[in-house]
Amino acid sequence: MNNKKMKVALLGCTGTVGVQFARLLEDHPYFQLVALTASGRSVGKPFGEAVGSLAWAGMSDALRAMPIGECTADWIGSSDARIVFSALPASIAGDLELELRDRGCLVFSNASSHRMDPQVPLVISEVNASHLTLIHEQRLRFAGSIVANPNCSAAGLVIVLKALLRFGLRGATVTTLQALSGAGKRGVAALDIMGNVIPYIPEEEDKIACETKRMLGCLAHGRIADHDAGLFVSCSRIPVRDGHLQSLVVELEEDVSRDTFVRALEGFSAEPQQLELPTAPTAPIIVLPGDDRPQPLLDARAGEPHRARGMAVSVGRIRKLGERFALFLLVHNTVRGAAGASVLNAELAFRMGYLDEGDR
Amino acid sequence: MNNKKMKVALLGCTGTVGVQFARLLEDHPYFQLVALTASGRSVGKPFGEAVGSLAWAGMSDALRAMPIGECTADWIGSSDARIVFSALPASIAGDLELELRDRGCLVFSNASSHRMDPQVPLVISEVNASHLTLIHEQRLRFAGSIVANPNCSAAGLVIVLKALLRFGLRGATVTTLQALSGAGKRGVAALDIMGNVIPYIPEEEDKIACETKRMLGCLAHGRIADHDAGLFVSCSRIPVRDGHLQSLVVELEEDVSRDTFVRALEGFSAEPQQLELPTAPTAPIIVLPGDDRPQPLLDARAGEPHRARGMAVSVGRIRKLGERFALFLLVHNTVRGAAGASVLNAELAFRMGYLDEGDR
Amino acid sequence: MNNKKMKVALLGCTGTVGVQFARLLEDHPYFQLVALTASGRSVGKPFGEAVGSLAWAGMSDALRAMPIGECTADWIGSSDARIVFSALPASIAGDLELELRDRGCLVFSNASSHRMDPQVPLVISEVNASHLTLIHEQRLRFAGSIVANPNCSAAGLVIVLKALLRFGLRGATVTTLQALSGAGKRGVAALDIMGNVIPYIPEEEDKIACETKRMLGCLAHGRIADHDAGLFVSCSRIPVRDGHLQSLVVELEEDVSRDTFVRALEGFSAEPQQLELPTAPTAPIIVLPGDDRPQPLLDARAGEPHRARGMAVSVGRIRKLGERFALFLLVHNTVRGAAGASVLNAELAFRMGYLDEGDR
Amino acid sequence: MNNKKMKVALLGCTGTVGVQFARLLEDHPYFQLVALTASGRSVGKPFGEAVGSLAWAGMSDALRAMPIGECTADWIGSSDARIVFSALPASIAGDLELELRDRGCLVFSNASSHRMDPQVPLVISEVNASHLTLIHEQRLRFAGSIVANPNCSAAGLVIVLKALLRFGLRGATVTTLQALSGAGKRGVAALDIMGNVIPYIPEEEDKIACETKRMLGCLAHGRIADHDAGLFVSCSRIPVRDGHLQSLVVELEEDVSRDTFVRALEGFSAEPQQLELPTAPTAPIIVLPGDDRPQPLLDARAGEPHRARGMAVSVGRIRKLGERFALFLLVHNTVRGAAGASVLNAELAFRMGYLDEGDR
Repeated sequence: MNNKKMKVALLGCTGTVGVQFARLLEDHPYFQLVALTASGRSVGKPFGEAVGSLAWAGMSDALRAMPIGECTADWIGSSDARIVFSALPASIAGDLELELRDRGCLVFSNASSHRMDPQVPLVISEVNASHLTLIHEQRLRFAGSIVANPNCSAAGLVIVLKALLRFGLRGATVTTLQALSGAGKRGVAALDIMGNVIPYIPEEEDKIACETKRMLGCLAHGRIADHDAGLFVSCSRIPVRDGHLQSLVVELEEDVSRDTFVRALEGFSAEPQQLELPTAPTAPIIVLPGDDRPQPLLDARAGEPHRARGMAVSVGRIRKLGERFALFLLVHNTVRGAAGASVLNAELAFRMGYLDEGDR
Repeated sequence: MNNKKMKVALLGCTGTVGVQFARLLEDHPYFQLVALTASGRSVGKPFGEAVGSLAWAGMSDALRAMPIGECTADWIGSSDARIVFSALPASIAGDLELELRDRGCLVFSNASSHRMDPQVPLVISEVNASHLTLIHEQRLRFAGSIVANPNCSAAGLVIVLKALLRFGLRGATVTTLQALSGAGKRGVAALDIMGNVIPYIPEEEDKIACETKRMLGCLAHGRIADHDAGLFVSCSRIPVRDGHLQSLVVELEEDVSRDTFVRALEGFSAEPQQLELPTAPTAPIIVLPGDDRPQPLLDARAGEPHRARGMAVSVGRIRKLGERFALFLLVHNTVRGAAGASVLNAELAFRMGYLDEGDR
Repeated sequence: MNNKKMKVALLGCTGTVGVQFARLLEDHPYFQLVALTASGRSVGKPFGEAVGSLAWAGMSDALRAMPIGECTADWIGSSDARIVFSALPASIAGDLELELRDRGCLVFSNASSHRMDPQVPLVISEVNASHLTLIHEQRLRFAGSIVANPNCSAAGLVIVLKALLRFGLRGATVTTLQALSGAGKRGVAALDIMGNVIPYIPEEEDKIACETKRMLGCLAHGRIADHDAGLFVSCSRIPVRDGHLQSLVVELEEDVSRDTFVRALEGFSAEPQQLELPTAPTAPIIVLPGDDRPQPLLDARAGEPHRARGMAVSVGRIRKLGERFALFLLVHNTVRGAAGASVLNAELAFRMGYLDEGDR
Repeated sequence: MNNKKMKVALLGCTGTVGVQFARLLEDHPYFQLVALTASGRSVGKPFGEAVGSLAWAGMSDALRAMPIGECTADWIGSSDARIVFSALPASIAGDLELELRDRGCLVFSNASSHRMDPQVPLVISEVNASHLTLIHEQRLRFAGSIVANPNCSAAGLVIVLKALLRFGLRGATVTTLQALSGAGKRGVAALDIMGNVIPYIPEEEDKIACETKRMLGCLAHGRIADHDAGLFVSCSRIPVRDGHLQSLVVELEEDVSRDTFVRALEGFSAEPQQLELPTAPTAPIIVLPGDDRPQPLLDARAGEPHRARGMAVSVGRIRKLGERFALFLLVHNTVRGAAGASVLNAELAFRMGYLDEGDR
């Protein structure tokens, strides 16, 4: 089976998201990681050394020793990989991903650069698998294709909203309490955040609103019509390592009971579950009992089976307040909110036939 | 002038709120602190020793040496104080405050016990000074009277909503990020909260919604009719020392511009400012410039003049999102949200004549 | 094989140490956990519920559902367990462990109550396995026996000092930076420790000095003569979850090179390694490369194989300063410093024949 | 009097130390701040804006509006200031301070660049005021002079050791627990230090040992002979904002009682106290009662009068352990350990006549 695995490359492997990609792609049933790239100062170093304290217990010796290459289209082209995962910062991702697409690569990207490009599917596998047909649209114009996954907070939010969509979604008010790993290894200085909250994350609120409405939108004639729900988003950074907590209030068209509401969340399931994709959680949404959950420290890595840890969205404190519902949700920002979403998209694309050699 | 100051007692002086009361009452122009009480294990100890690490730099030797008495109506009665400030926990406050009212005391209480009692005015001085007339109603039935101030988060929220009331308040969605001091000196264990968020504070959400609607309500014929705005409140505890941050989205009847909205907040002023009460901040609401404010660490103690530090509510990141407005607000939970609100109520009552000897 | 496992009970199963005991005893090759006890409010609850947020991912359903019994000699007697692990607080452990010894139990105790009792072996398996012969001495007088393991910090320190003992140990100056879990689930209030250090842990310094000297001491004629090295210990509590870091300066009799010193640490091994005990780490001391290690967050769970995670002591920054050596060491306080030390003692006692049925 | 104040410049005014310099020099009785410099991106900005969140409550409008100039000898020369305070990083300070000395400036520098230069006095005013005569030695060769103050941790340590010097100092073993502000505004990333300790600060241990021995050394014939005590120093970084805590064990020649030891610390006083210098604390060493002090959060700003807050070293937990003494000490790293030490040196130099116009 190993010789049938598809060869994949990983761009930007040393950051908080890149490392999660590597962890998920290590010993993957469909994919074989054959190339790693990172920025200049890591080039030439073995992966294990370059990631330093982000290394995980149990990393294989082979991966630990794998040398890091240059982040250029030529270098990536020199590997056999035509599937490319991108954990690059937007500033670099923009041009390089276009270049790789022109060279025939299928790029699964966590970068924000092309998320709102009308030709690029922006996908959470449980939410809008059908948008992947845009892969074909792209291939009509380019040698390859780009598939984006959304912002870390949007990834969790959209799964919950999708589960409620059947009741008619009028609006949602969201306040995020986002973890430090979302800002990168050295993104937030200790003196700024310790014992503090910063009620601002540049551009984040717009990303969450726009991307969520796009993923909930309908695809028709190769165009996505955004969902028209009102989204009112406010973001903050808090001194937590991993896991974005969100306080959500939703306004539905239909008047449903709390029981119906809870069942819609608990029972939610989609293509990745039906296909039993390797990185798909058995239950994409876990409704936690108990008064005081979800908590980032306890619940960020929710998800079964073991390979899908961090892929489930935890929900708790569901309250019916008049005509609206309030709840807290938690998404692991670098797994379900980034690397895991991207890998799951690739798994889904693979099983849906988008990665077939003949197609390219 | 000193011999004309009114004598006051402070109940529950050793907690995080009690200590703020003591600080505000030290060297107060209207009031003279003559009695301190606390729970059993502190009785007999000098105040400075009993409060331990909560002592502030510059505490007077006299206050430091002041002995702590028993928390009983008899002991309080034995002091000359007929004005009593209460920082007691609700479990003790309920009965003792009633007993003190029966003995003719005017009790300014931070406890939640009697806040929703229709006879008890629940007051933030800048919001509903008129409700203080309930003092007279109580005195028709009892020897004294109780005046309550609201929950720490409601105290900040209601000031902002009051400033916007002229535009018609349809609804407000609030998520609080509350500081540790609100839970008391030993209220939250380090292992539970360090690097974490707990999205639950018992009974807090209901308090915030009910108390806010009451304070915004109209008093007619001795009865308060609650405001009918929809309030959707979600609370969380975060690892911050002081200052409750709130993410607020408001729905107004009137369509106003962002400029008008901002001016309404900045220009807000009420009786305490007109009377230049000692603990009143010059501006009850401070609209902060800058993208990333208010922050608990930097802004919790906002307020001028020096005596009013921690009495201003800081507001920032005001955004017009379609028909709604989003912003973050910050209130110092043990000052404006507790002790300071209570002392300001007493100052207002004093200047409005409710504390006149002849009246009792 | 399963029907040959020895039945064991666990006293005080719900605290930070008790939970580590349960984790280590779950699916243990020698021992089968048949009884759990805890304090009053947990009695009758299933283990999984009683430990709340201390539960670990992957806990078996059987253990999760296991009911918690009363912490009495009668209840423990009613189980078949004659091997008892004790994670009780000293206040309760003192009498109950004596009673269990009188009833014929072999008690492996993490409590401090009997550590300095001359009849009770105080043991770290790699350091003073020979002291276990005191088990026989006890059995001459009592039906059973007690085996103690040391204070959490002493457990790490003594392993490092033992490895250096061949060079002659004149003295050691130790400053500990101890984690919060050492003080129990609710032992340290967040307001006291967040962004702070408390340079005091009651009785800790004496325990570390006395217990370490005892474990390094010689047993002759049924008596232990303490080692006469000078130990100068200072303790502090810091805002870290797990892992006690220690800054150590040692004074040796012999003048050794840094290389020799490092080799003595790296090469250290003892009975548990030779016997390949289940909970024994392959290397009891891991000398970390790199300038800035060991760090609690990265290194507390050091130890191979998987069952021995948290059982290795990490050492780094070894410097020769004139005639003295300085280094930092890190010990996982609830594993090697508590539950793991106790379980390893029991494994060693089992393999050395002290647990034989015939003997009791 | 104001027109008689000496004009001073401040180099590197926007960092954690620079801001403390500005605070101490605002409204100073001897000095008038006439020029501020910082690195490129702050040049041209008003001071208040450039320091951002490091601004202190009560900063004067004049200082807030003061424009920041380029960090060049020409620009500094264009101001009238011949007294220059330097909070520059060593990489810049080295050459620029030499250039300013050549131009006739008297530079009081917190940078490490010239601390070990045999011509430059390295001074804590209470410890080695006599070393200031090296100012004259420098002026024989250069137009101006440089006076250095030591590393932040050494500043606190040397005061305590100086107070004990009368008993004969044989050796000292020190472990530091250093605050984040010592590493600069963005010096430590939150993900690296939150809930963690880093047992390493580059070059710090050598600095502390060498600088301390130099300050305790004797000046004879224009040369300083370092003290020969053995110093064994280990440094760590912990998640605390301000205040370096140190665990110290001292070995004295003389056998003194604990009482004598404590009195030597409490009674310590030197030239700055005798001259009542503006920034001198009444007591340079404060011996705290209580079991659990000093704590960074509670004690870092110790020192009377108000201008000298943060200038006293707090000491606690003094224990006699055999022939050695153990204690914890705390020094405010950016005040006594940096800016305050430098300003105090300038005050002392001024009162000792080293700043006289005629001399230059």
